[in-house]
Amino acid sequence: MTDHIYKKIELTGSSTVGMQEAIENAISRASKTIHDMRWFEVVETRGQLDNGKIAHWQVTIKVGFSLTE
Amino acid sequence: MTDHIYKKIELTGSSTVGMQEAIENAISRASKTIHDMRWFEVVETRGQLDNGKIAHWQVTIKVGFSLTE
Amino acid sequence: MTDHIYKKIELTGSSTVGMQEAIENAISRASKTIHDMRWFEVVETRGQLDNGKIAHWQVTIKVGFSLTE
Amino acid sequence: MTDHIYKKIELTGSSTVGMQEAIENAISRASKTIHDMRWFEVVETRGQLDNGKIAHWQVTIKVGFSLTE
Amino acid sequence: MTDHIYKKIELTGSSTVGMQEAIENAISRASKTIHDMRWFEVVETRGQLDNGKIAHWQVTIKVGFSLTE
Amino acid sequence: MTDHIYKKIELTGSSTVGMQEAIENAISRASKTIHDMRWFEVVETRGQLDNGKIAHWQVTIKVGFSLTE
Amino acid sequence: MTDHIYKKIELTGSSTVGMQEAIENAISRASKTIHDMRWFEVVETRGQLDNGKIAHWQVTIKVGFSLTE
Amino acid sequence: MTDHIYKKIELTGSSTVGMQEAIENAISRASKTIHDMRWFEVVETRGQLDNGKIAHWQVTIKVGFSLTE
Amino acid sequence: MTDHIYKKIELTGSSTVGMQEAIENAISRASKTIHDMRWFEVVETRGQLDNGKIAHWQVTIKVGFSLTE
Amino acid sequence: MTDHIYKKIELTGSSTVGMQEAIENAISRASKTIHDMRWFEVVETRGQLDNGKIAHWQVTIKVGFSLTE
Amino acid sequence: MTDHIYKKIELTGSSTVGMQEAIENAISRASKTIHDMRWFEVVETRGQLDNGKIAHWQVTIKVGFSLTE
Amino acid sequence: MTDHIYKKIELTGSSTVGMQEAIENAISRASKTIHDMRWFEVVETRGQLDNGKIAHWQVTIKVGFSLTE
Repeated sequence: MTDHIYKKIELTGSSTVGMQEAIENAISRASKTIHDMRWFEVVETRGQLDNGKIAHWQVTIKVGFSLTE
Repeated sequence: MTDHIYKKIELTGSSTVGMQEAIENAISRASKTIHDMRWFEVVETRGQLDNGKIAHWQVTIKVGFSLTE
Repeated sequence: MTDHIYKKIELTGSSTVGMQEAIENAISRASKTIHDMRWFEVVETRGQLDNGKIAHWQVTIKVGFSLTE
Repeated sequence: MTDHIYKKIELTGSSTVGMQEAIENAISRASKTIHDMRWFEVVETRGQLDNGKIAHWQVTIKVGFSLTE
Repeated sequence: MTDHIYKKIELTGSSTVGMQEAIENAISRASKTIHDMRWFEVVETRGQLDNGKIAHWQVTIKVGFSLTE
Repeated sequence: MTDHIYKKIELTGSSTVGMQEAIENAISRASKTIHDMRWFEVVETRGQLDNGKIAHWQVTIKVGFSLTE
Repeated sequence: MTDHIYKKIELTGSSTVGMQEAIENAISRASKTIHDMRWFEVVETRGQLDNGKIAHWQVTIKVGFSLTE
Repeated sequence: MTDHIYKKIELTGSSTVGMQEAIENAISRASKTIHDMRWFEVVETRGQLDNGKIAHWQVTIKVGFSLTE
Repeated sequence: MTDHIYKKIELTGSSTVGMQEAIENAISRASKTIHDMRWFEVVETRGQLDNGKIAHWQVTIKVGFSLTE
Repeated sequence: MTDHIYKKIELTGSSTVGMQEAIENAISRASKTIHDMRWFEVVETRGQLDNGKIAHWQVTIKVGFSLTE
Repeated sequence: MTDHIYKKIELTGSSTVGMQEAIENAISRASKTIHDMRWFEVVETRGQLDNGKIAHWQVTIKVGFSLTE
Repeated sequence: MTDHIYKKIELTGSSTVGMQEAIENAISRASKTIHDMRWFEVVETRGQLDNGKIAHWQVTIKVGFSLTE
């Protein structure tokens, strides 16, 4: 069995709906160019406020994916 | 263009429904007395347990708002 | 009034639905063997990715419960 | 039952006697203007030295109190 | 000489008197069921406030003890 | 000699010139309403980028000031 | 597919040989009573010195294992 | 309105002049290949010493930029 | 002399042999596509367990390399 | 007025009595060889356990003192 | 080629002018007694306030220098 | 029994062979001038890269030693 190597990149997803969709948006966007994504880790959760309400949820994640040999 | 100054305060919102509503409750309460809120950052997520279930979600956030000149 | 002593254990719950259910699953499982659980604290939020989508949400929490005298 | 909202402020108490009195001094001073204080968390413990002895203990705490509706 | 293995558990002790007694209470309670405790580390110091005074000191510690072969 | 109590607040100053002026702007604004400011601590240094250049430096500080008896 | 729940415990292994053997000793000891261990994370690496040499390597790890339904 | 996704990369800029120029050098270099940079965060400030003087300031930053759809 | 700019990327190497080989595997893989690598920093050490033994060591590192002008 | 330079050293004091005396013991010992000590900061609080009781409190502090010109 | 050993000490420099000069003052003072200084790392940036203005910038750094064989 | 006082210093050892030897080199060098060293703690593990390979492992440790009365 080979020893795998992974790369981790940091993404910030945003959503008007909620923190979970912000994460899903970031992963969905990443899947367009990155194959073999394996895991993510939440780094930070923030949001922008407008008129006393949450306008955008912003969640920063790290995504790990396998590097092909 | 002027250089803005912001103040950040720390709030803990609670909710019986979930972590997102706990955040929204804190911001909704803050909007009664603070104008020009710009962003929030999640600091800590906890909850109280009762009879083996989550009785209250408690999320601590920092809220940044613009100080008027 | 007596001085209570609490023990904190660390659990990782998982869910295909979302981060909140992952927490609830961990607490539900813990309630089978632990009585008098009082609070939890979220330590880490991660997830496993499969085919460019979130296969499992994984949330690590600490659970505090009262030790009987 | 209503969902409570709390605000947390950061105070540094000092005392010539010890770290516990420094905390009590900060809380005693806060109680003059803040009602419904619920909990505190120790953030940092320091002190000033003079002639090779501790002149002042300085303990920084966060104090959480309930915001009235 | 053998290579020892230790386990660390996390406890929160409380006391109406002070932070040192809160630690001692947690260790005293642990000694009822755990033998060969070797060291502790303070993780967090908090307290509950009631009527502008400290009702309970709450100190969270990790306790390390030797696992018998 | 009396035991002083200090309060710490968190401010974010901004400047088009640099990080030092961002700090000075925050302190200058705070001095309009707060007396007896004693020290500050830098918490975070960020900035906004526009057209490949730094449009605004943003420095978050904590400011400690003495509470009068 | 079921949603798995994991528990994490904290162990300190020691070895006169090196840091890797200290980790392996802790895991070997844990395997006597815990089944279905899945992963570990290194928390801290220390050692005891005697006569200017390393007498014992001490590595603290967290071990995650699956809780049976 | 669309939900934006950002990527964050980590750069270390250096300068013989000072920490601010080290940051500006890193951003200037990044602007050659990255469009739509939005913000930066200072992660670490270091420097190399030679003959008792600062030979190079080295500042590590994270730069966030918008990913095009 | 020019002011160098460095980029840091995050990699996770794995090995069945040990933590040092996991780091070397990650660097060896990175050297296939990155030139002028200068330093690395260990971020996290973990491993996967199977049948009570370490199946894979997994070490996450940051690798800094020089960006050509 | 001159610009002062301070050096900070790290000490661990111990005491059979309590954490405050452990700090005082460390400072008392340091005062034998260091003049012009100005402040201390608590870094870590631990202790050694023997027969289910605290045998030694061990508190690690940083001590700052003024360097003479 | 020999394997070098470095020692790191912690210094706090102050300046009425700015944070960069505070660092330079600390390094300049250290160069009087320490030879072969190689690098520094900024640990903390603070300052003292007087009459609503910055009276002293105070920057704490770690300085690494080579130990001669 | 007397209450011991310990001092902790920070050292960076290097080695072309590996991280364990880097630690041993730092301790070996320290033992030339320091007596009664008791423990060490690993603070940071890094290394320098040359031609796509690890040229030097660099491990920073804190070493605690007993101060004689």
